[in-house]
Amino acid sequence: MTSSTRPTLVIGNKNFSSWSLRPWLLLKHFDVDFAEIRLPLDTPEFYATIGRYSPTGRVPVLQDGELVVWDSLAILEYSNERWLEGAGWPADRATRAHARAVSAEMHSGFQALRSECPMDCVRRTRDPISAEARRDVDRIATLWRDCRNRYGGPFLFGGFSIADAMYAPVALRITSYGIDVGPIEREYVGALLGLPALKSWLADAEAEQRNAHKATR
Amino acid sequence: MTSSTRPTLVIGNKNFSSWSLRPWLLLKHFDVDFAEIRLPLDTPEFYATIGRYSPTGRVPVLQDGELVVWDSLAILEYSNERWLEGAGWPADRATRAHARAVSAEMHSGFQALRSECPMDCVRRTRDPISAEARRDVDRIATLWRDCRNRYGGPFLFGGFSIADAMYAPVALRITSYGIDVGPIEREYVGALLGLPALKSWLADAEAEQRNAHKATR
Ligand SMILES: N[C@@H](CCC(=O)N[C@@H](CS)C(=O)NCC(=O)O)C(=O)O
Ligand SMILES: N[C@@H](CCC(=O)N[C@@H](CS)C(=O)NCC(=O)O)C(=O)O
Repeated sequence: MTSSTRPTLVIGNKNFSSWSLRPWLLLKHFDVDFAEIRLPLDTPEFYATIGRYSPTGRVPVLQDGELVVWDSLAILEYSNERWLEGAGWPADRATRAHARAVSAEMHSGFQALRSECPMDCVRRTRDPISAEARRDVDRIATLWRDCRNRYGGPFLFGGFSIADAMYAPVALRITSYGIDVGPIEREYVGALLGLPALKSWLADAEAEQRNAHKATR
Repeated sequence: MTSSTRPTLVIGNKNFSSWSLRPWLLLKHFDVDFAEIRLPLDTPEFYATIGRYSPTGRVPVLQDGELVVWDSLAILEYSNERWLEGAGWPADRATRAHARAVSAEMHSGFQALRSECPMDCVRRTRDPISAEARRDVDRIATLWRDCRNRYGGPFLFGGFSIADAMYAPVALRITSYGIDVGPIEREYVGALLGLPALKSWLADAEAEQRNAHKATR
């Protein structure tokens, strides 16, 4: 791939932008060569610039030549077709349907957990969570356990897939907010945190937060 | 297909269940032979029965032999692979990415419109809508116009696709709540309402509401 044809992923800040993390993690894990444009969420810079890239005013958005693909799930599906030759999803059709079901459930659901415990990579607290957020966590834990029991781990469908990219921000929330989960869920969180691609995102998130603190001192 | 291998789609009532309509419309439009189980939303019957079918407690959910696929978008993707040989999405990869982007935007967005103007097929009113719901309608109208200008209609990507199944409930809301839209959007709503599969859903929704009124008389 020549540098002029490298795709560009436009994302929010790494510490906070959970939807951006998902496609970034897939592309990085599968070693796709891409450029990155980072726009810090909730800033005048974001609102002044985002319209240039994204028809929804949201990140993530992917540019691949003339093509603009927005929404995390659509970017994941496109990346799978464009660069991964289908390796982003399980190879078996029924297993792939299961993987798409859990991914779509994440994409459209868990509002309580998402709004109450927004992704904040560097945060380490132990706050009580509401009954609604707890219900979300319990459903996610059931779904994770079901996948690990059926397919044997270490990831939801065996090897790393788009479904794991979808749930990676949940693993970070569990860590940041000290949310209680069982041993199988902790093991799965550990498998995600062990991914070099996720470590690299977290290092960038930490650097971002250090610089933000310096800037406001 | 023998009748024992017919898939079953579990749906809510046709008058109200917008997420159910989406996969139902695709399967019907493409003449897939399927059985249907209808559980009226918000009833004791629903809550007593849904756990038997759906791990999320929600409809739609598809059973295909041993396989259970939940969430409208995952069912649409699975149906496309299982019965349509890919014909559910545009054949061109870039166009397919665009179709997935608009479908994912619908799947995760337009909360104001969805909560303020819930699907209610038989309803005919003209209520003012909030500024937030109007913003949703304006974004949808822009997205529809962009597709129709680029691909020429009559549907969003030329022929009927999963993206149209995703937006069909919006067309019904525009009709039910008398929401003002421009000529291109009205033309597109007309194309959807002209689909035999959608007409058949609407006839069932009307019958459902007639019976519901009889029952409470
Ligand atoms: N359904 C979208 C959600 C995207 C989204 O909400 N992104 C947030 C950041 S994580 C955003 O851009 N917020 C900026 C805003 O809404 O002003 C997806 O999956 O990509
Ligand atoms: N993201 C899901 C949403 C499904 C959904 O919310 N379904 C509604 C009916 S349209 C439901 O089952 N509601 C029942 C309940 O939540 O108790 C999908 O796309 O299928």
